Parts: sequence; C-alpha cells; structure tokens
Amino acid sequence: MLADPSRKYRPVSPVNLADRQWPSRTLTQAPVWLSTDLRDGNQALFEPMNRERKLHLFHELVRIGFKEIEIGFPAASRTDFEIVRHLIEADQIPEDVTPMVMTQLRDDLITETVRSVAGARRVIVHVYNAIAPAWRDIVFGMSVPQMIEMVERHIGLLKQLTADHPGTEWVLQYSPETFNMAEPDVALAMCNAAIRVWDAGPLRPMIVNLPTTVEVSTANVFADQIEWMDRRLERREHVVLSVHPHNDRGTGVACAEQAMLAGAQRVEGCLFGNGERSGNVDIVTLALNLYTQGIAPGLDFSDIAAVARVAEECTALPVHPRHPYVGDLVFTAFSGSHQDAIAKGFDAQQADMPWRVPYLPVDPQDLGRTYDSIVRVNSQSGKGGIAFLLQRDHGITMPRRMQVEFSSVVQALADTSETELSSEQIWELFESTYFALIREQSGFTYRGHRLYEHADGQGITLDIADANGNINTVEGTGKGLISATVAALGLPLRIDSYEERSLGAGSDAEALAIVEAAIPGVPGSRFGVGRHLNIVTASVLAVLSAAARFSILNEAAS
Amino acid sequence: MLADPSRKYRPVSPVNLADRQWPSRTLTQAPVWLSTDLRDGNQALFEPMNRERKLHLFHELVRIGFKEIEIGFPAASRTDFEIVRHLIEADQIPEDVTPMVMTQLRDDLITETVRSVAGARRVIVHVYNAIAPAWRDIVFGMSVPQMIEMVERHIGLLKQLTADHPGTEWVLQYSPETFNMAEPDVALAMCNAAIRVWDAGPLRPMIVNLPTTVEVSTANVFADQIEWMDRRLERREHVVLSVHPHNDRGTGVACAEQAMLAGAQRVEGCLFGNGERSGNVDIVTLALNLYTQGIAPGLDFSDIAAVARVAEECTALPVHPRHPYVGDLVFTAFSGSHQDAIAKGFDAQQADMPWRVPYLPVDPQDLGRTYDSIVRVNSQSGKGGIAFLLQRDHGITMPRRMQVEFSSVVQALADTSETELSSEQIWELFESTYFALIREQSGFTYRGHRLYEHADGQGITLDIADANGNINTVEGTGKGLISATVAALGLPLRIDSYEERSLGAGSDAEALAIVEAAIPGVPGSRFGVGRHLNIVTASVLAVLSAAARFSILNEAAS
Repeated sequence: MLADPSRKYRPVSPVNLADRQWPSRTLTQAPVWLSTDLRDGNQALFEPMNRERKLHLFHELVRIGFKEIEIGFPAASRTDFEIVRHLIEADQIPEDVTPMVMTQLRDDLITETVRSVAGARRVIVHVYNAIAPAWRDIVFGMSVPQMIEMVERHIGLLKQLTADHPGTEWVLQYSPETFNMAEPDVALAMCNAAIRVWDAGPLRPMIVNLPTTVEVSTANVFADQIEWMDRRLERREHVVLSVHPHNDRGTGVACAEQAMLAGAQRVEGCLFGNGERSGNVDIVTLALNLYTQGIAPGLDFSDIAAVARVAEECTALPVHPRHPYVGDLVFTAFSGSHQDAIAKGFDAQQADMPWRVPYLPVDPQDLGRTYDSIVRVNSQSGKGGIAFLLQRDHGITMPRRMQVEFSSVVQALADTSETELSSEQIWELFESTYFALIREQSGFTYRGHRLYEHADGQGITLDIADANGNINTVEGTGKGLISATVAALGLPLRIDSYEERSLGAGSDAEALAIVEAAIPGVPGSRFGVGRHLNIVTASVLAVLSAAARFSILNEAAS
Repeated sequence: MLADPSRKYRPVSPVNLADRQWPSRTLTQAPVWLSTDLRDGNQALFEPMNRERKLHLFHELVRIGFKEIEIGFPAASRTDFEIVRHLIEADQIPEDVTPMVMTQLRDDLITETVRSVAGARRVIVHVYNAIAPAWRDIVFGMSVPQMIEMVERHIGLLKQLTADHPGTEWVLQYSPETFNMAEPDVALAMCNAAIRVWDAGPLRPMIVNLPTTVEVSTANVFADQIEWMDRRLERREHVVLSVHPHNDRGTGVACAEQAMLAGAQRVEGCLFGNGERSGNVDIVTLALNLYTQGIAPGLDFSDIAAVARVAEECTALPVHPRHPYVGDLVFTAFSGSHQDAIAKGFDAQQADMPWRVPYLPVDPQDLGRTYDSIVRVNSQSGKGGIAFLLQRDHGITMPRRMQVEFSSVVQALADTSETELSSEQIWELFESTYFALIREQSGFTYRGHRLYEHADGQGITLDIADANGNINTVEGTGKGLISATVAALGLPLRIDSYEERSLGAGSDAEALAIVEAAIPGVPGSRFGVGRHLNIVTASVLAVLSAAARFSILNEAAS
C-alpha cells in the first residue's frame, strides 16, 4: 500500500563525543542576539521589503534591544547598498548597535562590501562558503585543500582592505555554511584557517558562526557538534562562537538552546521564525523561553502583539494562532478543568512570589496580553458555540481575537445566570456590548459626519453627543477614513485591524464594520462594531464603538 | 528601560542522570503513533467538530495509517458518546485499529466510559490525574499518599468493571498529567501503583504515558526524565512507554525525538501540531523527520496537501506557510545561489542513489509536491516582483501558491530571454497562461451556460467548443455552482480553493475568479482564472481554465 520513501535517504553520521558535557548543564545567561530579519528573512519573501519597510523594521529591531543586526548584502543588492549608506551617513545606528553586512568569497564583492560600510564606527563583515560534501562535489567541484586556500586568500584580502580604514572597528564573522552536514574535521580546518589569517586576538575581534543550513539530524547531534568545535577552535578566548539554526525538522529552537548549553555564545535568527523554507530559528520564542528559566533575555517583548504586527506588515506573512507566546490562542483555555485550575492559580498567586499558575507557562501581562477562558454556551452538543450562533442567526463573522473577547463577556453572564444561554440572549449581549454604547450616554454618540478632501488624503467633520446630549463637532484628517476618524476623536487609539462585509445580499443589505483597537500601554485590544446601510458610516460607528469601549473601561478602573 | 519579568520565574530542577545513554543513541524505528486529534485537538477549537467532521477526520486518520486513535471523552460529552457507539455498532473501526477513550478518576465517569465502549474488540481506556506540586497544592489540596490511594482505588474499579466484559481486550493507559513538572519520585510512585493495581502482564496490556503538559525546560531535560523512568518502571517489559509532548516553548518535536532515544516507544500528538495553547507535538513533522533518517514512519503522507486540507477544514485553523514539509514556502527557493545549487543537484541525482539535492531536505515528490524556484523580475530594486507588478498594473491579487506557480512560468521565459522582463511581458504571459487557453483550441472553449434549480442544489448546462470548434452541451449538478460545473465536465477535478473579487470599482468593473484545482494522483495543483462582468460567468471560466491547464499538461506528458 505505502511506497517507502525512507529507503532513499541516509542519515548524517553523528560526531563521536562520548564524554559530552552539555546535557548536564543548565542555561545561565542570554546569548548575544543577531537579527537576520533584514537579510536572511528578507531574502525568502515573495516581495522583498522596500527601503521604507526595511528602515521601519531596522528601527523596530533597535527598539526591541538587538545589539547586532544584519542589515543586508550590499555588494549584491543596490537597495541594500543604499540602505547601508543611509544608515551610516544619517547616523541612524545607535552607538551600542553593530551592523553586519554579508558577502560571498569573491574579490569584487569583498571590495564593494568594505566600500559600502566606510565611515561606520564598528562593523561585522560576514563571509561564508558552503563546505559539505554535496556542495563540494555537485555545486563547486572543489577539493577541501582548494576550499581552505580560497578561504585564506579572501580573508587575507579583507584584512588588507580593512587595514586602510583604521577609524572603523572591524569584526570578522566566518560561517562554514552547511556546517551540520560537513565532516567535523573539515569544518574545523576551515574555521581555524579563518582564525589564523584574520589573526583573531584581543584587538582583532572575530565570530565563528555555525549553521544548521538544512536540518538533517535530531537536535542533540547539533549540540554534540558544537561542543566538539568548542573544545577544538584555536584562540578560543578571542572567538565568539555563534549558531544559526534553521527549522526544516521543526527543531530550530531546541537546536539553539542545546547549542547554548554546548558552548554557543551567540544566536542568529529572525522574529517569529521567518527565513528561507521553514525559517530561521525564532528569536522571540528563544528569548521568552529564557524568562521561565529566570534569565533576562535583554530584549523587550512587553507588547508582543505590537511586535507581531510590525513583522506581519513588513513580511506579509502571518503569525500562526498556535505560535508560542504570541499566537492568538496560546493564552486561551477551553476546557472546564483547565479554566478551573487557572482561576484557582490566579487566586493563589501572590505579587512577589514566583509565578505558579497552572497551564500558563508565563504571565500574559508580561507580554502585554490577557488570559482568556472560552465558554462554550452549549458544549455538550459540540456545535452550539457563540460564534456559530451569531453566524447562523445574524450573519456575523467575528475575527478570532474578537471571538476570544466576546466569549469573556458571555462567560460573565453565564456565570451569573447559571443556565445555558439562548441564541437570542447572546445576540442581545452582542448588541449591548458593541452597538448600544454609541447610542446612549457613552460620550461617543454619533450624530452625523461630513467628508472632505484634504492634502493628507481624507478629512472628516464629526458630530458627537456627549453624555449629557450636547453635540460637539470635531475634525480630523488622515491617510484614510479610519485614521481621520481616530484623529478627530483626539484619542491615543491605534487601529490594528479592520474588516467590513455585507450582512446578507442585495442593495438594501447593511454592512457590518469591525475594528480592533489598542491604546499603547494598556494590555490587550478592544473591538468596535458599526452597522449601517452606508459602509462609510458603518466604519465611523465601529471606531466610535471601540473608543467608547476603552472609555468605559477606564472609568470603571478609575 | 526594561522591566525584568525573568525575576518572577523559577526553573524546574532537572533530574540527576549523569550516566544518561540517550544522547549516544540514534533512532532505529518508528514509534507507535496515537492521534489525539479528535480529543485533545478538538478540545482546543473555537467550534468543536460536529459529528460529521469528527467522523470525516476519523476515517482520514485511519487512511493515513494510525493504529491507535483517541476518539473522545464519552463520559463528558454526549456527542463523543454517540460517536463512540456509532463507530462500534456500525463496525467502522478496522480490525487493526484500536480506539482510545479518556476519563478522569471519578467512579461515575469510569462506569460510563466502560459502558460507552461495550462490544468493542479492543479498547484503550485512558485515565489521568495531574500530579505536579502546583496542582496538588492549589487545585486539589491533596497529599501524595492521598493521590496514590485515589489512583489505586479508581484503577481497581476499572479492573473490576472490565472483568465483566471478557469479549473485549482491555488496555489500560495511565497518564500522570504534568509529569514534567513533578518530582520524579512522585511520578514513579504513581505509575508503579497503576501498574501493580492493573496487574500489567502478558495478558493485561498497559501503557504509561508521560506528558509535558506545559513545556517548562529545555528538551534534553525531558529526555533525561524519560530515561530515568525507563530504568525504574516496574514490569517494564509489559508496559508500553509513551510520551505526550506539548509545544509551549516551541520544542515539542525535539522533546518527542529525544524521548524516543531515551526509551519512549509510543508518541501521542496531532496533525500539524493542533491542540491546547501552542499545540500538541506535530505528528506529521515527526513522521517525515523519520524519512530522512532512513526509517519508514508507517504513515501515508504521499499527498500531504490533501491531508492539510482535511485538517484545515475540520479544525478551521490554517497551516502556516513555513510549517515544515507542508507549508506553501518550504520547497521554494528564492536566492539565485540556492536555485543554482538545487538545479545542479537535480541534474546529478540518480534514480537509485540516496537523495542528495542541496537545500531540499526531502524530495518534494515523496509528499506529492513540487519544487519551485521563484524568480525576481527585478531583484535589485527589491520592489518589482511579479505579484507586485500584476497588482499595481492590473489589480490582480494572486493567492500565495498561485504566485509560486506563475513564477515558474515567468522563470521559463526569463531563462530564454535573458533580460529583465517588463510589466507588459508579464501580463501577456499571465493572459496566455490563464485566459488564452479557454479561448482557443484547448477543448474547453466557453460558449455559454444556463443555470437551473436542482434537488442537489444547483444545475448547469454548459456549451463548450472542442478543439475543432464543434459545440458540445454538457450538464452537471452539485451543491453549488463550482461543483456543478466540475460535474458537467466529467473530470476527476478537485477544487481546493476559490476566490473572486472585483477588478477596480464601479458597476462596470469586471470580476476575477481564481480556483485552485487538483487531480488525485497528480502531484501539485493548478490554478485557473476567469474574468467577466458577471461573477457567475467568471467562476465558470475559472473552472474551465483549470481543466484546460491540466489537460494541456497531460498531453505534453503523453
């Protein structure tokens, strides 16, 4: 019945390291982090980032706290060259951040790379070549001695070119690409050749970076390879040992962590695991895994949703709902026994005691998130969920995070009433939660609006009744309708998502607009909903609804 | 600047196992697989699967080759109870497949669970209780001796109840939940108590299942815990040692693999890593990881896209584009040097030799997929990609997989012309690839259609000109327009996705419909496109376009 493809594959031989030490160690400090989002991550996108997005992501990486950032491949890309020049000439790189530029071992590319970073305070020049047997045989047709000679010659050239720029602190990074598939002796010979030619020492900093270019073994094999190298690299005290794990077997995070136990001092990766094929190792997960080991990662993910939005915007790739720490569903409990245990855990948790809430590996507040328990209005039938009833009876499709939010509202009512809720009760609750707010004395009651053209793009004049019924007329402009409406309200509201669709068919169908809004510094998001025959009015109402929901929340808290 | 949340967490103490053996071992065989998609996976969905979806997924799991399937929690859910009865009474469980049912340690639930599976040939009854300190202290308020007594009493009851049904082969599974957070001595005492009370032996089969209920340590710590237990469990030869890894730290796959090295003989998990929070371990990745170690996993993923579609349909959760083996982007190369190396690898690959193509960990054909190299029409600018130009100049938004497909078409032209392609050339190519096929002598030239109501839902009469211009009128019915059109064509075409949107605004805007189609047994999918003022006609044209693209492909191959 089954074909057996396993017969065509051969495992890579593991390194022999019977006296390995790494499995007896525990993590004690964060590694140096290198973000390769702008190079390795960017290279694997359908639409590479343009200059604007690259700079946006660069500044976000700096804000998060990366001290080493690979900014591109300037000798191969005009965009990258221009960005490197811009960052240096406009003095956009903070003093404590070192940029890295990558190049292959070719004379012209190395020369151009050095030229691209002229004037920088400190730069890592990253050179690499693929060394595993399949690459030597099939791609390059080169012997090991030929490859070592090539490494020596080009690093010699780089040493000579950089000597002409004494105002810059030059760091060499050498990566034997496909390290994990190569014979350990070959990898070691390449790295030691690079160390000698560069003359690594106290004043000549150097990084040896060992990648799992394509994952081919269980994660313990890579740790053995790292420990084997860690013991044998020359001038070890003057070399930073770095790893660059990929994720073809879904074990990138484990490879990085176990490599750190085995001697790696630095990790290269991307936000949320972006990168060629199955991605580079996810630095967000790695960093947050350190929290729970009692280690400060040195990166700021205190508003992880905001970081995810920047990454999604720049890469046009989604973050999966089950992605550790950041996914929509990872702080959500569905089962009654889990909800019960978590509730008891929150009750028992004391402010200055170690975190000990069942089923929640970290406190969602530390990531700017909230815990959500999802009630099933009719769990026994398995098909009577809240979203299902609103969809079936009212044609409303809620985004996933909104389902989480509204579920908490329903939960509160279910706890009070102690009976199963009807579809009608759920609908009333939906209306009073999202619609009624802007009809009554919320301070955001819609009375009318006018649109006008503006140099910014869109202008709006908005009539709003306050809690006493007095009408205020406010104005705002923005690139579009939503941003203009937010500007008119004068609130620090950030709209993170927007969707609108018709309720039913035909020209008399109402439109339902849904916005997800956040206020910087306030954990979690709130949804706002607007419904109207005119899609423009529905959108304005949705923004007002979100604003009202934040406002009521704040009053309750004050 | 940064708050330091790391201060509120304490790492779990690792087990002391200086003479560990697992890191020196390699994988030699596949474990027993247990799918918990229908229970653990289902429990963490917004909309739990209804009976129809559950049965659909059950049959798919059987087809894939699972020999043990957890089918639910019959004592807690009416739907689950009914499904269990249906599967047994309608004889839907193949002889070589053993169902598993789960229950907590409560007299009434155990009694009801035994009742639910009456008449089955062979059943695993899965009992569990949470044993880690936080749960003992905060949730249950029980001491260790009290917990051991509770385990003994309830397994004693189960032994007594099952003795009344000698026609069924009863297997006990005991899970000390939160095992990885518990003191090893406590976990061992619980398991050995269960083994003794059940009287595990040659005729009394038993499984001890050790979960990382919430991941809290690096993956090597779990392997140590498993090896520690493996050496100490009583009646070890009569007990199957199983693991149930979660994925809170993104290391579920590594935990499972290293646990297998440490003695685990069985793995519980879900397709594509579904399950509470960050999911259970992904059995698809685990199984395919075995391929490249030269080990047959015993599960059929030879059409992995079809499995993904079933999972996505049943769970309403997406598979991420970078998910190992199955993601849209994992067999895609963007960089020129990778594309070059892969091309050389394919050239050098011989039929009966081990797989050795650079950058491709497995042969995509083994999974029913194809390798795609993405050409950038204007890679230097970083903003002139194919999708960008079609979007900017023609308003066309291609789904991601279609971008991959069309990129190959552009690649072929780029290779021939050796110059950079203009937006106009790309548009001509798009038209001739997707539109012209159904205008000319493809055998699928649209001439007209009529719709009618039918008991199935929708009927269509379709006029098609063959390659000689003769018009054939064909008829089909289906639940909707697309399925009716496919039926009318009489081809084994499966439509996997459909989308339609207007090109530009206003009432004179044309609609563009895009369908993704597959033919069972043919690797990969093909896209079809239709454009028309009438959205119905556009949809019909899209199906014809897809059909024509398969047909031309087949002719070229024959």
